[in-house]
Amino acid sequence: MSSKKTLSIREMGEAASAASRRLAVLSSRRKNNILEAMAEELEARRSEIQAANKLDLEAGAKAGLSKAMLDRLALTDARFDSMVKGIYDVIALKDPVGRSLGGWVRPNGLEIEKVSVPIGVIGIIFESRPNVTVDAAVLCFKSSNAVILRGGKEAIHSNRALAAAIQEGGEKKGLPANAIQLVQTIQREAVRELVQLEGLVDLVIPRGGEGLIRAVVEQARVPVIKHYKGVCHIYVDKDADLNRAVDIVDNAKTQRPGVCNAIETLLVHKDVAEAFLPMLANRLIAKGVELRGDSESCHQIPEAKAATEADWDEEYLDLILALRVVEDQEAAMDHIHRHGSKHSDAILSENESAQKLFLQQVDSSTVYVNASTRFTDGQEFGLGAEIGISTDKLHARGPMGLEELTTYKYQITGNGQIRP
Amino acid sequence: MSSKKTLSIREMGEAASAASRRLAVLSSRRKNNILEAMAEELEARRSEIQAANKLDLEAGAKAGLSKAMLDRLALTDARFDSMVKGIYDVIALKDPVGRSLGGWVRPNGLEIEKVSVPIGVIGIIFESRPNVTVDAAVLCFKSSNAVILRGGKEAIHSNRALAAAIQEGGEKKGLPANAIQLVQTIQREAVRELVQLEGLVDLVIPRGGEGLIRAVVEQARVPVIKHYKGVCHIYVDKDADLNRAVDIVDNAKTQRPGVCNAIETLLVHKDVAEAFLPMLANRLIAKGVELRGDSESCHQIPEAKAATEADWDEEYLDLILALRVVEDQEAAMDHIHRHGSKHSDAILSENESAQKLFLQQVDSSTVYVNASTRFTDGQEFGLGAEIGISTDKLHARGPMGLEELTTYKYQITGNGQIRP
Repeated sequence: MSSKKTLSIREMGEAASAASRRLAVLSSRRKNNILEAMAEELEARRSEIQAANKLDLEAGAKAGLSKAMLDRLALTDARFDSMVKGIYDVIALKDPVGRSLGGWVRPNGLEIEKVSVPIGVIGIIFESRPNVTVDAAVLCFKSSNAVILRGGKEAIHSNRALAAAIQEGGEKKGLPANAIQLVQTIQREAVRELVQLEGLVDLVIPRGGEGLIRAVVEQARVPVIKHYKGVCHIYVDKDADLNRAVDIVDNAKTQRPGVCNAIETLLVHKDVAEAFLPMLANRLIAKGVELRGDSESCHQIPEAKAATEADWDEEYLDLILALRVVEDQEAAMDHIHRHGSKHSDAILSENESAQKLFLQQVDSSTVYVNASTRFTDGQEFGLGAEIGISTDKLHARGPMGLEELTTYKYQITGNGQIRP
Repeated sequence: MSSKKTLSIREMGEAASAASRRLAVLSSRRKNNILEAMAEELEARRSEIQAANKLDLEAGAKAGLSKAMLDRLALTDARFDSMVKGIYDVIALKDPVGRSLGGWVRPNGLEIEKVSVPIGVIGIIFESRPNVTVDAAVLCFKSSNAVILRGGKEAIHSNRALAAAIQEGGEKKGLPANAIQLVQTIQREAVRELVQLEGLVDLVIPRGGEGLIRAVVEQARVPVIKHYKGVCHIYVDKDADLNRAVDIVDNAKTQRPGVCNAIETLLVHKDVAEAFLPMLANRLIAKGVELRGDSESCHQIPEAKAATEADWDEEYLDLILALRVVEDQEAAMDHIHRHGSKHSDAILSENESAQKLFLQQVDSSTVYVNASTRFTDGQEFGLGAEIGISTDKLHARGPMGLEELTTYKYQITGNGQIRP
C-alpha cells in the first residue's frame, strides 16, 4: 500500500529519485507483470473510480465549467475501456531500455558501448483529462522512469482514485514504492516547486494550453519538453495535382479541426490560385469552414473574409482556415519560417526538386510531401503510444513514444587502461 | 566582408536564424572549402591576431589577473598552430547532417524517414580561452548551425580578431553572412538577452566555471546543455586487483588533476581497506597528493587528514583526494548517487556481477570497469572533436561531438494519403 503520509514536493522528488534507481534494474518481464496488475486493479475499481469522477463532474458543473471542459473531464465507460486497453497495448511494446545504440573498441582496448537508459524522474503537468494520469504513468513506468504527476484541480478526485489504483495494483506485483506519485495538493505553488527541483527531477513535460506551458517554461530550472501550439501549413505548389490537393487540404482542416496537427493556414502558388481556390472553396464552405484570405484569395473567393496580420499566427483549432497566395515556393517557406510553430507542414507538388527543397528547408518536426498533416501522431507513425508531441528541437522532436523517454550512457570496459 | 554595423542581441538572433536556413542547404564539399579558407585566413593574419592577443594580455596584467588566467588567455605559437590544425581535423570528419536515422513504410504507403538536421542557432558563452572562438565556431559550422559567440571580456581583442578572420576568410568561399557572429559588447546584460531569445536561439552551451553556468541556467528561457562540475569517483571493490588499482587511481588523480574527468573521491570496500590504502598512500604521497579520509581511512593512513562532510561534494581540481571506506558496493553506489555529478565513475573489480551492477545502477554519463576515468573525452572516445561534456541527461550526455550538434526531423512522402 502507498504511504498515507502527505509528502512535500521536495520529499516527493527525493522519493522519486530513490525509486528511479530501483526501476533501472527491473526486467521487462517484471515490468509487464506489474502493468497487468495495474490494468486489473483499474477494472476492479471501475465503479469506485467512476464515483470519484462523478464528484469532479458535479463540482465542475457547480463551478460553471464549460460543456467542452466537462466533456473532457468525464470518464465514460468507453474512455475507461480504452484507458485499460491502452495498458495492454503498452505491455505489447518493446522495452526501450537497454538497447545498444552503438559499440566500438578503441586502439587501447577500451570497449565502449552506448546503451539506452531511463531518463530518471519525469514530472508530468496536465490539465483536465483524468485518463492522462494512467496513460502517462504507464509510459513512464514501461521506460523505467519514476513519475510525478500533477493534474488539474478540477479532476483531483478522479486523479486520486486512478493513481491509487495503479499504485496499489502495481505494488502487488512489486512496483517500487514512489515510482508513481500524484501531487495531492491543488495549490499552484506546487507546480513551481516541482519544476525547480534541480538534481531530482530530470525532465518536465507540460501538457495543456499555451498558458500552462508558458508558465512552466518561465518557472522551470529543469529541462522541459513542450509543445506550445500547432500552426501547421500546407503549401500548394504550381505543380500540384489540384484535385488531390482539394482532398488533402479538406482532410487536414476538417477531419478533426480541434487538434494540433490540423492545418491553420493554406499557402497557394499564384500560378494555380485562380484554378485551385474556387474549387477548394466549394468543398470547404459546404463543410462550414470560414475562410480568411489575403487580398488575392478574397479576389478568387468572394465568400472569404479579409485576413488580418494576426491570422497568420493563430491556432484556430476550429473550422477556420487562413489563405494566402504567394509569389513562389521561397515566399511560402518564408511565411512558414516566420509564422509556423515547427510542428507539421506539407508541400503538395509533383515536382521532385520542389519536394526536396521543402523537405530540406522547412524547419519543422515533420515535413510532408503530398499527404495530410494529420498523420503527426505516435500511433500513425507506428510508435505504438505517445506521451506528447514536441515542437522543441532538443532530445525529442515530433511524436514522443517510449524511446524518447530514454536517454543513454556510455559503459566502458577496460583491463587496466590508464591515460598516458 | 562582414557588416560593420553593430547589431543588437535580438538583431543578431534574427540574423543567425536567417543564416541557419542558408546553412542547412550547403553541401559537405562546400562547407569543407569554407573551413579551409578560414584556416588559411587565420594563418595569414597570425601576427595581427597575436598583436590583438598582446593587448588583452597587457590589459589583463594591469587588471591583476592571476598567472593561471593570463596563461589561459595567451595565444602562443603552439596554441595557434593547434587551433589551425584543429580546423583541418574537423574538415576530415564526416558531415553529421543528412544521416538517415531510420526509415519505414506505413501500411497506408506513407514513407517515413528520420533524418539528422542541424539544431539551428547555437549560442556559446565562454570565458578566458580565446581559441574557443575558433574551435566552437568551426564545429557549429561543420554541423550547419549558425553560432553566436560570447567570450570573456578579458579576451575581447583576441576574440574580435579571431572571429573577423574566420568570418572574412569563410566569406571568400561563400560562408553565409551572419553564420558566425561574435557579441561585440562586453556588457553582462548581453548574456541575459541572448539566453532569453526564445524562437531565435535553439540551444545555449555555456563553457566555464560553475558560477557562469549557474547564472546562464537561471536566466535562460532557451534549452541549455551544461556541465556544472566533475566530482568523479573510483570504487575499489573487495574483488579488485589491488596492484592494478593503485595504477588506475594514481592515473585518475594525478595525470592531470585540473580537469573534470579526474577523480576527487575514492571509495574502498572495507575488506580490502587495510591491504590497499597504505599501498596507495605510498604512491600518492610521494607524488604530493593530499589525502582527506573518513575515520577508517585515517586509521589506515596516518598521514591523511580528517575529511569533513563538505569534502564529498568538492571538485578539488587539484592534488587532493578524499577517501572513504564503505561497507559494501551498495554503500559505494549510494555515496555516488548522493555526491556525484553524473559525469564519470569507475568500479575496479574482477567480479562480473559487481561490474554489471555498477554499470547498470550508477547514473552517470560514463561508467567504467577497470579503467581510469580520464578517458571521458571526445578525442579519447574517437569522436574526433568535442564542443564540451554534458552532465545533463537530455539530448546529449558525456562528450559532445559533431553528431550531438544535430537534431532530427521526420520527412514523410506520400501520394495523397488522408487520415480516415
